[in-house]
Amino acid sequence: MDIIYFLDMVGTFAFAVSGSLVAMKSKFDIFGVVIIAFVTAVGGGMLRDVLIDAHPINWIGDLNYIWVILIAVTVTYLFKSKIAPLRKTFVLFDTLGISVFTLLGIQKSLAFGLPPFVALIMGMISAVFGGVVRDVLTRKVPLIFKKEIYASACLSGGVVYLLLRYVSVKPDIQFVLSAVTIIVIRIIAVRKSLELPKINKDVFGKS
Amino acid sequence: MDIIYFLDMVGTFAFAVSGSLVAMKSKFDIFGVVIIAFVTAVGGGMLRDVLIDAHPINWIGDLNYIWVILIAVTVTYLFKSKIAPLRKTFVLFDTLGISVFTLLGIQKSLAFGLPPFVALIMGMISAVFGGVVRDVLTRKVPLIFKKEIYASACLSGGVVYLLLRYVSVKPDIQFVLSAVTIIVIRIIAVRKSLELPKINKDVFGKS
Amino acid sequence: MDIIYFLDMVGTFAFAVSGSLVAMKSKFDIFGVVIIAFVTAVGGGMLRDVLIDAHPINWIGDLNYIWVILIAVTVTYLFKSKIAPLRKTFVLFDTLGISVFTLLGIQKSLAFGLPPFVALIMGMISAVFGGVVRDVLTRKVPLIFKKEIYASACLSGGVVYLLLRYVSVKPDIQFVLSAVTIIVIRIIAVRKSLELPKINKDVFGKS
Repeated sequence: MDIIYFLDMVGTFAFAVSGSLVAMKSKFDIFGVVIIAFVTAVGGGMLRDVLIDAHPINWIGDLNYIWVILIAVTVTYLFKSKIAPLRKTFVLFDTLGISVFTLLGIQKSLAFGLPPFVALIMGMISAVFGGVVRDVLTRKVPLIFKKEIYASACLSGGVVYLLLRYVSVKPDIQFVLSAVTIIVIRIIAVRKSLELPKINKDVFGKS
Repeated sequence: MDIIYFLDMVGTFAFAVSGSLVAMKSKFDIFGVVIIAFVTAVGGGMLRDVLIDAHPINWIGDLNYIWVILIAVTVTYLFKSKIAPLRKTFVLFDTLGISVFTLLGIQKSLAFGLPPFVALIMGMISAVFGGVVRDVLTRKVPLIFKKEIYASACLSGGVVYLLLRYVSVKPDIQFVLSAVTIIVIRIIAVRKSLELPKINKDVFGKS
Repeated sequence: MDIIYFLDMVGTFAFAVSGSLVAMKSKFDIFGVVIIAFVTAVGGGMLRDVLIDAHPINWIGDLNYIWVILIAVTVTYLFKSKIAPLRKTFVLFDTLGISVFTLLGIQKSLAFGLPPFVALIMGMISAVFGGVVRDVLTRKVPLIFKKEIYASACLSGGVVYLLLRYVSVKPDIQFVLSAVTIIVIRIIAVRKSLELPKINKDVFGKS
């Protein structure tokens, strides 16, 4: 349990750094950078909690989220010239983040009595929504819709988690095996630049 | 009651197809297409339920929404070369959708004890919000703000519904007459390319 | 108390006018203008109430918000040629609005038992979120992230408010002093075109 909480904070930190980097690149002022970091890091869990009526929602119930985000912004600011070139290494932390967010989202939703299929969707929302809002606010087409196998990784790991739960493996092993699934798929995808097939085949005119 | 539920699913299907078409045109990957279809179809009802505190919210309380959306995406994918040129015919289904969504939104809000005027706004939110999010996520100015009489149709139908309720016509007739109002206004508007007047008269400089 | 309610309505009016002006400039139709005015004026309080689970949320619990917004849109429409050049004067009303929204947001959050730090964030969300949505819907990079000291003004005023509460000054004086703090900082900032420092120092390539 303590390890999962720790990983949740690592994920929050990683997402906050990713938000800060995007916002700094868009030349936002300090306030804007903090907001984007905040939304990227806790946006997914916040939407999940509002949708499943889990109050107090994530960052209201636990101030550590905010502190971690503020530290992440400070660290990014101080070491930005060193972090920016490390972006590929950084994918590791980010991937750790999404795997933990997905599984925690599923766990919490099941604990609130939602059916497994809905819990799976909630897991994805937890992992994905923060990045979508980050991209909308910085006026990008959300990355995830175009060239990321990101969502598929979450989905696969989530299914593995639900299956392991069903055959009642020990909780810790459920969590670790599913997290590893997500991390492996994502890392392979990034290395090989895998992308999901586009559905469009020029049926429509120019967009 | 059963017929209204059936129409709700028809509307969900139509909205999901419209979302899929826009996302495919924007060259989103499969995941992106499903998300946009999902948000377009259930986004309005989801916001309504969060705002009026109606838990479980629409698609969490009834998994049929998700199945209908997944079927709609599959159908759109398989027959996209046939659906794309049919877009004008498709307006019919879409219009059926918005009329049902508007009226169901009003009904549910009244059932939750909201005053008629608030219920009317909730009806519009139910019908309109999904399309707005679709347009934001695909980086378009929401269509509805610029050249659609869409919202006016919902509003008119909603007012008719509230009036018929007030004079206590039979529930089925209330629903049918109001739905027909919305459908007729919308179809006429599309045919004649009616638009609401723009408020701007070049008082401001170039935008 | 009555004066604070009056100021809340003044703020709502000012925000609705600001939303209307932006939407008219973007050549939205009447419906679009009303929506943008609505979202700008009550969006912040609406998000706050959803996040802290305060139902009925602001405009559902008090229809006066809607009436004030409709009056603001009408007034803006009728006198737009006169309002547009007055934009700088208009900043005064707008500033009155944000100061009241910030402090009311903090008050309400504290009344719901939230810790002061969370209440401070909620105060900022109340003041800021409406304008962010307005900018997203009209396809602008949210102004506040780039060149407004707006948020810093809210934050400073909020901190002053919490400190005065802590030393238990009389409630009216708390409110007035904090509001004055926000107004003064903002007015000075607008006059001197102060901006927060950008974090970016060309570490990244071209954006």
